[in-house]
Amino acid sequence: MTKTKRIPRTPSAYDQPLLIKTLLLQSERYNPEREIVYRDLFRMDYFELNRRIRRLANALRTLGIAPGSTVAVMDWDSHRYLECFFAVPCMGAILHTINVRLSPAQILYTINHAEDDILLIHEDFLPILESIHGQITSTSKIVIMSDKVYTQQKTELTKPSFPTLGEYEALLAAQPAEYDFPDFEEDSWATTFYTTGTTGNPKGVYFSHRQLFMHTMGLLAYFCGYEALPFSHRDVYMPITPMFHVHAWGFPFLATMLNNKQVYPGRYEPEMLLRLLIQEKVTLSHCVPTILGMLVNSPIAKQVDLSNWKVIIGGSALTRGLAQAAISLGINVSQGYGMSETAPIMSVVHLNDQQLGWDVQRQLDLRTKAGRIAPFVDLRVLDEKGDILPHDGQSVGELVARGAWMTQGYYKDEVSSENLWKGGWLHTGDVGSIGPDFYLTISDRVKDVIKTGGEWVSSLDIENIFSQMDGVAEVAVVGLPDERWGERPYALVVPKPDFVKTLSSEILHQHILTLVETGEINRWYIPNRIVLVAEIPKTSVGKLDKKKIRTEMKELLVG
Amino acid sequence: MTKTKRIPRTPSAYDQPLLIKTLLLQSERYNPEREIVYRDLFRMDYFELNRRIRRLANALRTLGIAPGSTVAVMDWDSHRYLECFFAVPCMGAILHTINVRLSPAQILYTINHAEDDILLIHEDFLPILESIHGQITSTSKIVIMSDKVYTQQKTELTKPSFPTLGEYEALLAAQPAEYDFPDFEEDSWATTFYTTGTTGNPKGVYFSHRQLFMHTMGLLAYFCGYEALPFSHRDVYMPITPMFHVHAWGFPFLATMLNNKQVYPGRYEPEMLLRLLIQEKVTLSHCVPTILGMLVNSPIAKQVDLSNWKVIIGGSALTRGLAQAAISLGINVSQGYGMSETAPIMSVVHLNDQQLGWDVQRQLDLRTKAGRIAPFVDLRVLDEKGDILPHDGQSVGELVARGAWMTQGYYKDEVSSENLWKGGWLHTGDVGSIGPDFYLTISDRVKDVIKTGGEWVSSLDIENIFSQMDGVAEVAVVGLPDERWGERPYALVVPKPDFVKTLSSEILHQHILTLVETGEINRWYIPNRIVLVAEIPKTSVGKLDKKKIRTEMKELLVG
Repeated sequence: MTKTKRIPRTPSAYDQPLLIKTLLLQSERYNPEREIVYRDLFRMDYFELNRRIRRLANALRTLGIAPGSTVAVMDWDSHRYLECFFAVPCMGAILHTINVRLSPAQILYTINHAEDDILLIHEDFLPILESIHGQITSTSKIVIMSDKVYTQQKTELTKPSFPTLGEYEALLAAQPAEYDFPDFEEDSWATTFYTTGTTGNPKGVYFSHRQLFMHTMGLLAYFCGYEALPFSHRDVYMPITPMFHVHAWGFPFLATMLNNKQVYPGRYEPEMLLRLLIQEKVTLSHCVPTILGMLVNSPIAKQVDLSNWKVIIGGSALTRGLAQAAISLGINVSQGYGMSETAPIMSVVHLNDQQLGWDVQRQLDLRTKAGRIAPFVDLRVLDEKGDILPHDGQSVGELVARGAWMTQGYYKDEVSSENLWKGGWLHTGDVGSIGPDFYLTISDRVKDVIKTGGEWVSSLDIENIFSQMDGVAEVAVVGLPDERWGERPYALVVPKPDFVKTLSSEILHQHILTLVETGEINRWYIPNRIVLVAEIPKTSVGKLDKKKIRTEMKELLVG
Repeated sequence: MTKTKRIPRTPSAYDQPLLIKTLLLQSERYNPEREIVYRDLFRMDYFELNRRIRRLANALRTLGIAPGSTVAVMDWDSHRYLECFFAVPCMGAILHTINVRLSPAQILYTINHAEDDILLIHEDFLPILESIHGQITSTSKIVIMSDKVYTQQKTELTKPSFPTLGEYEALLAAQPAEYDFPDFEEDSWATTFYTTGTTGNPKGVYFSHRQLFMHTMGLLAYFCGYEALPFSHRDVYMPITPMFHVHAWGFPFLATMLNNKQVYPGRYEPEMLLRLLIQEKVTLSHCVPTILGMLVNSPIAKQVDLSNWKVIIGGSALTRGLAQAAISLGINVSQGYGMSETAPIMSVVHLNDQQLGWDVQRQLDLRTKAGRIAPFVDLRVLDEKGDILPHDGQSVGELVARGAWMTQGYYKDEVSSENLWKGGWLHTGDVGSIGPDFYLTISDRVKDVIKTGGEWVSSLDIENIFSQMDGVAEVAVVGLPDERWGERPYALVVPKPDFVKTLSSEILHQHILTLVETGEINRWYIPNRIVLVAEIPKTSVGKLDKKKIRTEMKELLVG
C-alpha cells in the first residue's frame, strides 16, 4: 500500500462506524408510517418495527445473549426474520440464518459448527429439531415461533419433547421497547450462513457490519442512483428468495433503510404469492428461475396485471424462454449474478436509454446475460496462468472479484478459504467473459465446462438451446468421460405437462440436428444422449445439482 | 466500545478501502457518453474525463507531486477543477481548494499554512499571486490555467513576473492517459480548505477519502433513495456554489460517480448562468440565497422555463420572500443546512407525499426550514449543561452533530479543534430545535442570538419579518449592548431599486408596529434603529458578516 498523509484517528469520537444500526436508524425518519406486511397475518409501521426490534434485543439479552453470541434462526420469510436481521447484529451478536432445506444432519452440523448460542425456530420445523436435538452440543436454548398467535383461533402451540424458553411474541411483549444499541468496530461479525458445495460439509461464510453496510450502498447506488432497475423509497418490496439465503440478497437491509413498504410471504405457494403481489401492490422482487416459472405458468398469472412488477433473477441462468414468457405478461425481468460468498450482488442487467428502446427479442439478449458489473465491485477475467484478460467480450477465463462486501473465507476451514482467495482475488469458480460495456457473460461453472475434442463447450449454452424448443420445461446438461473425445455432453429434459406424451428424445435430437445443419451451432454440441425425465435433481437452494445429475446419468448409462 | 467477535483482517486483500478512486471508476461503466461542459468553451464525455484525469496525475507526478504532497488550486468552476477533484486525491496527494475571495494576505496565509507543494492558478488570479509571490514559503511551483486555449483566437497568455512550470492543457497533452491509481488507507487526507471565522486567521478543515466517500453515500441515499429532492443519473447538474467552497457541497463527487451530465459555469454572471441552465437543460443546482435572488430578479428569468430546475439553498437562511419568488417561476426550491466542518450536508428539506400536496404557502413553512436531518447524520440539541434535549420542535439549544463525514478539527490549531469537538459531538455554534419528524429549525448562530430583557430573540426571525415587507431587498439584524435590556436589536435594510426613493425607516418602523399591535410578533422584536443602506457587509462566501455589521452599526450610532 502506498503511504500517504494519514489523519491521526480516534474513530469512535469522530467517524461513525459503518454498522447495521446506522441503516436501521434511518427507517424512523422520513416515511415511518409505511407498512411491513406478513402474509394476511400481521402488519405494522416502521415505528412499531423499531420498537419490536428493541424488544427482541431486550428479550435476547434476558436470555443470556451478549455481544459475540450467535443467534440461529429457522423461520419462513416473515417480519420476525426481518426483526432478527436487525436486532441480533445491532446488539453485537451474530445472526446465523439456517438453511431449512438442508438435511437434518447438515442442519445439525451447521448449528454445532457455528457454535450457536440460541435457536429461534418456527414450529413447522420442530420435527427436524426433534430428530437432531440430542446431538446439539452448542446450546440448549430454544425459542418457538408460530403463526398461530396472529390468528383469533386459540390453537395450542406444538409442544416439543424438550424444554423451551417460550414463544417469540410472548417474549417480546414482556420486554421494554427501549434499547440503546452500542457502538463497536465495524469489522465485527454480523451474520453467518452455510453454503453447500458439491463435496464435503456445508461451509460457513460470514459478513461484517461494514460489509453488509457497503453491500447496501452498492444496491442503493445501482438501483436508486443508476436505475439499473429503477428503485426508490416508494417501491413495494417482496423477497421470494429465502431470507436464510444470503440475507434475501441483502435487499431487506436497503428496503428497511429506505422505509419501503415490505411484504414477507412466508412459504412460496404460487397462488398466495400472486395474490400478495396484487393485493399489496408489490413492485420489486427477486427469485430463482424455478419460482418465476411457477408464477408465470400459474393460471392466475394471466388474470392479473403484473406490468408494475420488476423481478431480478439469480441463482441459476435465466433462459430466453422463461424471460420471454415473463415479458409477455408485462413483467420487467432481468438477470443478476452473485454468490453466497459475495453477499451476493456482483452484477445485474442494466439497460441504458438506447437499449430500453430496443424490441423485446433484442433486449432478451441482454436481459438473459449475467448483468453489468455492479458499482464498487471489481470483476476480472483471469487466464489459466492467473493473468488478467481484456474486457473485450471475447476472452474467456475464470471470473474473479474484489470489493467491499466479499466474505473473507469459510469459518474454521483454512484450506477452502485459501482456495477461495488467491492472489488477492476471490475466485468465483465461474467461467465467462466481460464486454467493454461491463456486461458479463457466464459460460459455465469451471467444473461444469465440457471439454470435448479440444473444444470447451458451455453446458449452459446447450441448456439454452434446449430451453427454446417446443415442449421443454426444464433441462440440464452435463459432461461425462469419453475415451475418444475426453468428455461428451449428456442432456436430461423435463417435458411440459402438455407434451409428456408427445415429446421424445428423437424429436429433440432431430431438432438439434437441424440447428447444426443450418450452421447455428457446432456439431460437438449434440449430446451423446437425451433422456426425458419427470424431475431434475436440485440443490437445497433450487440450483441444478450437476454432481447428482452426473452420478444419476452414469448409473442410467450403466443400467 | 462494546467488544464483539471481530474478523481478523488484512484489509488490502479483502475489503476495498473507501477511496475517491472507487467513485471515479464507476463513471466509465454505465453511461460514459454523457458530457462534462465548461461554459461554451469545452465539452467532453466521461471516457475523456477519465483520460484527462490520468494525464493530470501523470503531469503532477512529473512535477514532483507524490502521495502526501499538497496541490493548491485557484480556478473558476470548471472541468479543470473537476479533474483536480479526482486526480489529486486519487494519486494520494491532498487537494487544497483556495478560496479566491479571501484577501491576498489571507490567501498567502493559507498557502503557507497548508504547506502547498504546487499551485495551479487561473490567469485571472495572477494579480493576487503577484502581490504575495515573494512571501510564499511553501513552494515555487506554479502552473497556469487559462480559458484562452479553448478559443480559436491565439491570444497570448498573461506572463507573470516569476517563472512557471507551464500551462495546464499543454502539460496534460504531453502525458500518457494511463495511470494506475494506487490503493492506500481510507483515512488518508484527500482535501483541505480554509474557513474564515469572525476572529483570527482562516482555519483549515480537512477530509479523508473515507469521509468524502461516505458523504457521497449520504447524498446518494438522500436524493436518489429517499428522493428528498429526486435525483438520478439522468439529472443534469450545475453547481453555483464555488468548487473551493466545501467541494461545491460534495455534489461533483456524486454526479461524477453517477455519470450525470455536468455543467461548470465559471464565473457567476446571471445572464450566462440562465443561458447555460436552459441550453444544457440543467435540472439540479445549489447556491446561496444571494445568487438565487440575482437569478430570480434577472429580466431573463421571466422569459424562460425554469420549471425543471431544482435548487438547494444553503449558506444563509432562505427567506420566505425569495422562496416565494422562486416558486412563482416554477423553480423547485428547498433549503439545506451544513458547514465547512461537516463536508457540508447535515440536513435538506424533504417533503413527504402528503406535504407535496399542500398549497404553496403551507409548503413554504417547510421549504424555508433548515431541512430534515440527512441519512447517516446524527444531529442533537444540547442544553447549556450539555444534556440532550428532546426532538419535540420546542426545546431550543446548541445543535451538535456526529456522522461519517465530519472534519476532525482544524489543521495545526489544537485549541479551535478542542472547542469544535466536545464530549464526542461537533459543536455547530448554531442554536435551534429538532421536531419529531426530524425537521430542523435554526434560530440563530449562538453568538448572534439577541438577549434582550431576559428573552432570547433570534436575529434571523426579525430578518425574516423585514424580508417580507414591500421594498426590502436585503436585511441584517444584530444585537448591540444596552444598559437597561442587556442587548437590543438593530436593523440594516437595503431597499429594492424601485424603492430607493420611497422607502424609509419610518415606514418600516410603522409596519413592524402594526405587526406588534395585531399580536403577530412580540414588542421586543422592534429594533432600536432601522438604518437604510446601499449594501450590507458580507463574508467571502456571501454570508452576512455580522461581526462587521455590529462594528459599523456601533460607529454609526456614535457618529
